[in-house]
Amino acid sequence: MPDDPLPAWNDGPNKQAILDFVAAVTSAGGDQFVTEGDRIAVFDNDGTLWCEQPLYIQLGFVLDRVRSLAPEHPEWQEQPPFNAILANDREALAALTKRDLAALIAATHAGMTTDAFAEVVRAWIGTAKHPRFERLYTECVYQPMLELLDYLRANGFQTWIVSGGGVDFMRVFAEAVYGIPPAQVIGSSGKVQFELRDGRPVLVKLPELSSFDDKEGKPANIHLHVGRQPILAGGNSDGDLAMLQYTAGRDGRSLALIVDHDDAEREYAYRVSPLGRLEAALAEAGQRGWTVVSMKDDWNRVFPT
Amino acid sequence: MPDDPLPAWNDGPNKQAILDFVAAVTSAGGDQFVTEGDRIAVFDNDGTLWCEQPLYIQLGFVLDRVRSLAPEHPEWQEQPPFNAILANDREALAALTKRDLAALIAATHAGMTTDAFAEVVRAWIGTAKHPRFERLYTECVYQPMLELLDYLRANGFQTWIVSGGGVDFMRVFAEAVYGIPPAQVIGSSGKVQFELRDGRPVLVKLPELSSFDDKEGKPANIHLHVGRQPILAGGNSDGDLAMLQYTAGRDGRSLALIVDHDDAEREYAYRVSPLGRLEAALAEAGQRGWTVVSMKDDWNRVFPT
Repeated sequence: MPDDPLPAWNDGPNKQAILDFVAAVTSAGGDQFVTEGDRIAVFDNDGTLWCEQPLYIQLGFVLDRVRSLAPEHPEWQEQPPFNAILANDREALAALTKRDLAALIAATHAGMTTDAFAEVVRAWIGTAKHPRFERLYTECVYQPMLELLDYLRANGFQTWIVSGGGVDFMRVFAEAVYGIPPAQVIGSSGKVQFELRDGRPVLVKLPELSSFDDKEGKPANIHLHVGRQPILAGGNSDGDLAMLQYTAGRDGRSLALIVDHDDAEREYAYRVSPLGRLEAALAEAGQRGWTVVSMKDDWNRVFPT
Repeated sequence: MPDDPLPAWNDGPNKQAILDFVAAVTSAGGDQFVTEGDRIAVFDNDGTLWCEQPLYIQLGFVLDRVRSLAPEHPEWQEQPPFNAILANDREALAALTKRDLAALIAATHAGMTTDAFAEVVRAWIGTAKHPRFERLYTECVYQPMLELLDYLRANGFQTWIVSGGGVDFMRVFAEAVYGIPPAQVIGSSGKVQFELRDGRPVLVKLPELSSFDDKEGKPANIHLHVGRQPILAGGNSDGDLAMLQYTAGRDGRSLALIVDHDDAEREYAYRVSPLGRLEAALAEAGQRGWTVVSMKDDWNRVFPT
């Protein structure tokens, strides 16, 4: 196929489902035609567009950031959960509570301007590497999904990220890596406070969560940011179920797509892990005929070369 | 001028300031050039893009909605603030407190799905008329601002609304009236709850405010939704000051624009009214050389014909 828009996808029913869907909604005059403005595609990020094992990449940032800030915080040596990170106590790290995580996020994501935070993330993401693949995290994105994003945009779709990850974190690299501009990145967010510092406007990141963009929060945030029901959604865990239901339940044609991590050799094989579960969404996919993508069978390449 | 992109604007320094600004930021190779993705223009709605006197249009919707729901709520006949509306008690209406308004918003904007609410607004906005101008509210938009929005988009700008008005209210007509799609409408918003009703996904509007998009909330929401600092902002009251400061304080060229209502004959003349004040923003405009548009002198037409 010389003009294959999805060369990293193996031929088969799942690739065909994508091609058929795009053909149907873009065929002017067809009964499943969708106008361009309504061609909204939403994607989870962690585990859907890039690797989330063995640790959410943003959590890797948090750990590195605690280590690099530690000299300014001698009290952290004795203070959980910071001391667990500084001692690299894997057992304690595996047992982090939500409250611990909130404290870590507050210490690493707040108390500075949005611009300063973006600079810190930019510096980190430009050098930090995945522990197993030994490549930049931004090179641990899935080549087939990059192709899918490009293919959708070439067909008049708007591509959006709808992730539990932090919006200020993802926006630093989303445009360069995925071709998705800041305004089309939806994520968890904290409150910010507008201030004039020496007459210069800044937004200061406060240690208070504003929106946790997971589960039922995803369709709510899609409504808030997009204002339209998507026609395509991609996810990889039960945290994406509500977004998949919101998309698949529209009047008219839709595509609900789940990435199933079943490739321990090239990436990871997991459905249940400390990061989340793929159970309810998989059951519903089976009942409703959603597209479950096997990383092992459907993708001839996982990462960009 | 045969190719005048702003025919409803009189020639003069304010029109020239707009033309000069757009020329400067779109001149490739010029030292004030701004790439397309960064050409973000944000506009307040009430009093900036459409008429806000004698009453916010959305408040007109609230009053009409209370009247039309009254038969289902016999208790409202005795219950403030509803009874004031039903009795058309202008004195009581003028004295509505924030708490009264919250009760009215909850009674008229919540307890139904987002789709049902949009239908109610659509029906109302399609027929309700301005009490003085006796034309549809959607025809009480400012022709010069429509031209400005078109002109900016023709020059690669993204145009956004950033209003204290309700996002679910404005999105019903913003695309048809202003050419601004739902995703580029930022406003005050309430919480919504995702539910499956008979297997069908819906979002139910809850009577709880999520974001009040006014004053310092405007730059915070611009960051949340756009993720980029605007290069052009338009407003008409002190509620827009933070957004104007956020825009004008960027590195590089910007345009901060204030609509001054000084035309009692064709529209209204006010700087201080129950709806808001134009004081601090006007003082800052004077100090910083922002563009203060006189409705009377700068616009040869106010409304579309």
